[in-house]
Amino acid sequence: MDPESFDAILIDGSSTRQSRDQLAPEAPLHIAVNGVSYLTTMRTPDGYDEELARGLMFTEGIVTNSDANPEFARIDDPETHFAARLNVTVAPSLLAKPVANSRNQLSSSSCGICGTRDPAELELFGAPLVIADASVVQPPALVNMMREMSSRQTLFKSTGGTHGASAFSASGEHLVTHEDIGRHNAVDKVIGTLLKNGHLQDAAVLTVSSRVSYEIVTKAYRAGIPVMAAVSAPSSMAVQTAATFGITLVAFCRETRMTVYSHPGRINQNGGEE
Amino acid sequence: MDPESFDAILIDGSSTRQSRDQLAPEAPLHIAVNGVSYLTTMRTPDGYDEELARGLMFTEGIVTNSDANPEFARIDDPETHFAARLNVTVAPSLLAKPVANSRNQLSSSSCGICGTRDPAELELFGAPLVIADASVVQPPALVNMMREMSSRQTLFKSTGGTHGASAFSASGEHLVTHEDIGRHNAVDKVIGTLLKNGHLQDAAVLTVSSRVSYEIVTKAYRAGIPVMAAVSAPSSMAVQTAATFGITLVAFCRETRMTVYSHPGRINQNGGEE
Repeated sequence: MDPESFDAILIDGSSTRQSRDQLAPEAPLHIAVNGVSYLTTMRTPDGYDEELARGLMFTEGIVTNSDANPEFARIDDPETHFAARLNVTVAPSLLAKPVANSRNQLSSSSCGICGTRDPAELELFGAPLVIADASVVQPPALVNMMREMSSRQTLFKSTGGTHGASAFSASGEHLVTHEDIGRHNAVDKVIGTLLKNGHLQDAAVLTVSSRVSYEIVTKAYRAGIPVMAAVSAPSSMAVQTAATFGITLVAFCRETRMTVYSHPGRINQNGGEE
Repeated sequence: MDPESFDAILIDGSSTRQSRDQLAPEAPLHIAVNGVSYLTTMRTPDGYDEELARGLMFTEGIVTNSDANPEFARIDDPETHFAARLNVTVAPSLLAKPVANSRNQLSSSSCGICGTRDPAELELFGAPLVIADASVVQPPALVNMMREMSSRQTLFKSTGGTHGASAFSASGEHLVTHEDIGRHNAVDKVIGTLLKNGHLQDAAVLTVSSRVSYEIVTKAYRAGIPVMAAVSAPSSMAVQTAATFGITLVAFCRETRMTVYSHPGRINQNGGEE
């Protein structure tokens, strides 16, 4: 999408000049499911709100059936001119948990796990399934995936203010890339697009341009994507969660370097040359 | 605080070696106010939970009196071994709005504004007060502040996984710096420490090592800090909110360069040399 332009003053040492700056759009989206208020998220309004909502409901465990075919009705709010409202209609039998009280709150541009009142409800403390997957990724293929994601981050190139996320198949085929001011939104847009296109089962690697915290790992887990690769650092809990959930977590992917933090069996460590 | 160590495998081209990596700690903190569940936040547990809670309650408008002197009782949860619970006791007359239903949810490591159900409740759409402040900051002083914050980001130096926030007086005196995996938590720890020490009114500049989105600007606004300076990009809504709230927003502060996006009158643009 197009960035938004703002007047600004650029100061460099003793020089000052007017500039016109391109900034990453951030605006609230309110999502209701079957008319029940679900959450408001701060996101980049790039035309992928339906994919965002679909990915979010899936990775949050509201609709866990990947064949669910929700319908979307959009209401742009004239009073709050850059807010948008999206009502999602899903067969009630497909709601895996009640929407009311599950996430009735505002989610910021980088919040991906709002919704639980108590730490004991964090999925980390449950007994998660473990992803069983025998595919092996070659390090040079991961390097290429990070480069491909980077080349597709067009909004970042003009604004410096967004994160990217991409999905790739086991053979390295690019499936989808999205950008957002919130790293978790970029991931949800990717997963929602894969669901919409019926390609979720083809996704073997999820790449993100950001750091990795707990909530991003849980999204990969919910989506059943066995390998996660990030440009920046993981948190301690991201590594602990990935280890528990059976996710291969690779981080600090920069140029030809990368660090593998969990389940390294899916990364070929014998030379890296294909 | 000390980072946590994890075993990892470092791959660089065709070479592979074991490494022991330092990662930024991330763990849940549950906050209750007068026994009423308030929220769970993913934060870096560095011993500043009370400052975090105090800053958060202030910037969220739960306790708006800066002279409130809350008491804290901490319960470490043996079942969820790295979760912690903090009960805050505040005189009920000092609660500016009810705690229940205000933020009864989980907040991720980068979520700062969870709590509102509806975009119309976003403060942006209200009629905010405007900060009136006549102080003028010299660009070289801002450059020094960013350098000082950077030099104090010790956890970032060892992990690459945290953000920093600092407060400075109008004369450039360093007041406090904190780090966290969540940029909003780092800001809340800074504001909570200023409240605890009775120095909030001395803070003239808030610096952050991260990007700036809507919620960070609202925190500066709630704290009454007139100038915000960030290392990375602002979002469109950060600039709009800063313009509305009377905050001088400076971003892309790198080396001697910076870009001023709102209320430039507080930044001396006449040469920058003192």
